[in-house]
Amino acid sequence: MKLKIALTCPDADAAKPWRNALTTQLLALGADAEIALWPERFADPDYALVWGAGQGFLDAHRGVKALFTLGAGVDGLLKLDVPAAMPIIRIEDGGMAAQMAEYVCHAALRHVRQFDVYESAMRTSAAGGGAWQPLEPRRPAQFPVGIMGMGALGSRVAQALQAFGFPVNGWSRSAKEIPGVASFGGEASLDRFLQASRILVCMLPLTPDTRDLINRARLQQLQSPGYFINVARGAHVVEADLLALIDSGHLAGAALDVFREEPLPASHPFRAHPRIALTPHTAAQTLIDESAQQIAHKIVALERGESVGGLVDRSRAY
Amino acid sequence: MKLKIALTCPDADAAKPWRNALTTQLLALGADAEIALWPERFADPDYALVWGAGQGFLDAHRGVKALFTLGAGVDGLLKLDVPAAMPIIRIEDGGMAAQMAEYVCHAALRHVRQFDVYESAMRTSAAGGGAWQPLEPRRPAQFPVGIMGMGALGSRVAQALQAFGFPVNGWSRSAKEIPGVASFGGEASLDRFLQASRILVCMLPLTPDTRDLINRARLQQLQSPGYFINVARGAHVVEADLLALIDSGHLAGAALDVFREEPLPASHPFRAHPRIALTPHTAAQTLIDESAQQIAHKIVALERGESVGGLVDRSRAY
Repeated sequence: MKLKIALTCPDADAAKPWRNALTTQLLALGADAEIALWPERFADPDYALVWGAGQGFLDAHRGVKALFTLGAGVDGLLKLDVPAAMPIIRIEDGGMAAQMAEYVCHAALRHVRQFDVYESAMRTSAAGGGAWQPLEPRRPAQFPVGIMGMGALGSRVAQALQAFGFPVNGWSRSAKEIPGVASFGGEASLDRFLQASRILVCMLPLTPDTRDLINRARLQQLQSPGYFINVARGAHVVEADLLALIDSGHLAGAALDVFREEPLPASHPFRAHPRIALTPHTAAQTLIDESAQQIAHKIVALERGESVGGLVDRSRAY
Repeated sequence: MKLKIALTCPDADAAKPWRNALTTQLLALGADAEIALWPERFADPDYALVWGAGQGFLDAHRGVKALFTLGAGVDGLLKLDVPAAMPIIRIEDGGMAAQMAEYVCHAALRHVRQFDVYESAMRTSAAGGGAWQPLEPRRPAQFPVGIMGMGALGSRVAQALQAFGFPVNGWSRSAKEIPGVASFGGEASLDRFLQASRILVCMLPLTPDTRDLINRARLQQLQSPGYFINVARGAHVVEADLLALIDSGHLAGAALDVFREEPLPASHPFRAHPRIALTPHTAAQTLIDESAQQIAHKIVALERGESVGGLVDRSRAY
C-alpha cells in the first residue's frame, strides 16, 4: 500500500526539499509514500502537511487522518476553519530547541557582558580617539532570567542559561517541575514571576489569552534596568509600551526576532533604535531533515494505531 | 603574628578594593594581615601581590616568600628581573574561566548563526526597503572549534562550546585527556589540529615559543571560511596576516579582545573593519572577591608549609 500525502508550502522551492526529505525518511522506515505538492492533489489523501496553508487547501483535505504543521506555532492555522475533530500535530523541537537556546544565550550574554556597548565604543573611537575603558564587570548571577512558556523549547533554554550561572524563573499556565528553575504557574503568580526577573524571555504560544500580554504594566514589574527578548510572536507585545519603557530607561534594551507586522516595515521605530537588536524571524528555523524524520516516525506510528506527541489541544489553542 | 603583605596596582583606586577584599578573606581564615599599598612599604614583607609591577617594586621585595600576580598571564612580569628562585603564583580561574566561556560562546554563536549579519541588514534596510531574507540555517556541528591552550580556562571553554554541539579540538604543548575533545599535543600535530578546525580560539600563554605563532601559514590551514577569536595576547598574532586572510575571504572574520598595542590605536585598520568585532581587553576581568579568596587560601597554605597551585614554571614561562 502506498501512503498519499498532500503538502503545501509558501512556494515550490520550499516544498521540494520537504518532499525529498520526507520520502527518504519514510522509505527508511519501510513506508512507501507518494507526495503531492499543492495545488496538485489526490482524490483520497491520507495525511496533509501544512506550512502557511490557505482555506482552499484545508477544504480540499477535510478527509485526512491528521494535519501536520511544519513549525512549532499553530496560531496562523487556527485562524482558519479546520474541522473540529481533525488531529493537528505540530513539530516538537525538530532542532528548534537548540536554536532557541543559542539565540537566547547569545542575546543574554551580549547584554550582560555589554559586548554591544564595547563593540560600538571601539568603532566610534575610530573617528574619535580610542576608547579603552573597562566597565564594571557584570555577571550572569546578577541577571535573573524569567522565561514565559516552559514547554520543550522553554525548558531547553532554561537549561542552557543555567549552565552560564543565570538564575532562571519559569512561568506557564501550570507550574512545571524543572530542576533548578523557580516555577510559577498561572495568572495569579505572574506579578511575582516578573518581579523576580530582570531579563524577560517570551516563548509563549500565541493564543487569545497571551495576545498583548506583554504590556506596560507587565514590563514595568521587571527589575530595572531590565531587558526583553522575544522569540515567540510579535502579537504578544504591545510594541509602543516596549518602546516607551526602553526610552524611559526602565528597560536597557531588547533583542527581537518577531514583530506584529512581518516583514518589519522599513519605517518602524524598532529599525533604527540603538538599543534594540533585530533579527528577521530566524531565531529557530525548522530544520528539514530533523523535522521530516520526526513526521515520518509519527505517520508510521499513526498507521499502526499508536498515539503520537505534539497533538494540538484545540481548547488551549496550542 | 601579623602577616605583612605588599600590594602594587596601577593606581590607588584599583588597589583599595583589593586591600579590603584580601584583609576580609584572610580574617575569615583566621589570619591577621597588614597590607601596604606601594610606594608605602614594610622593612620585612612576607608576600607581595603585583598587578603591573615595575622593577622598583620588585627590587624592594626581593626577600618575600612568594609573588602573587593578580591575573592569569605573567608575560609582563617575566620581562622584568625577578629573582630566579622566587616563587611566582598566578590566579587560577578566579572567575575568569566562566567569563572566557561567555566571551567565546557569544562570539562563536554570533558568527555561526550570523546574528551580526542579520542585525546589520535589519539596520541598513531602515534606509532601504526592509530586508527579510532568512539565510541557509547553519548549525554548530558544521563549525569545529580549535582551542589553542588547554589549561583551566581552555578546558572550561571547551565544555561550554560542547554543550551547544560544537565539535572541539584542543591543542597544547602536551595532549590533554578531556572527555569529548580531540586532543593534539606539540608542534608536530599543529597542522593536523588546524586542518581539523574552522573556528580558531587563541587561549595560549604568551611565551617566546608562542609569540607570532598565529601567522599566515597557520591561519591558512583552517577550514574555509574560517573564523578567529583571540582572548589571549595580541602578540600571538601577526596582525597584517590576519587582515590579509580576512580580506581575501579565507577567513570570514574575527572577534578580538587583545592587540599588539593596547589601547588599540585609533588609526589601526581593525577599528573600522566591518568583519572584525572588537572589545578592549575585557574578555575576562579579574574578579576581586573570588581572586582575593583564592590568594588568601594560598597564603595560609604556604604559611603551613603546604604546596599551592598556580606556581609559574619559569622554564616554560607560564
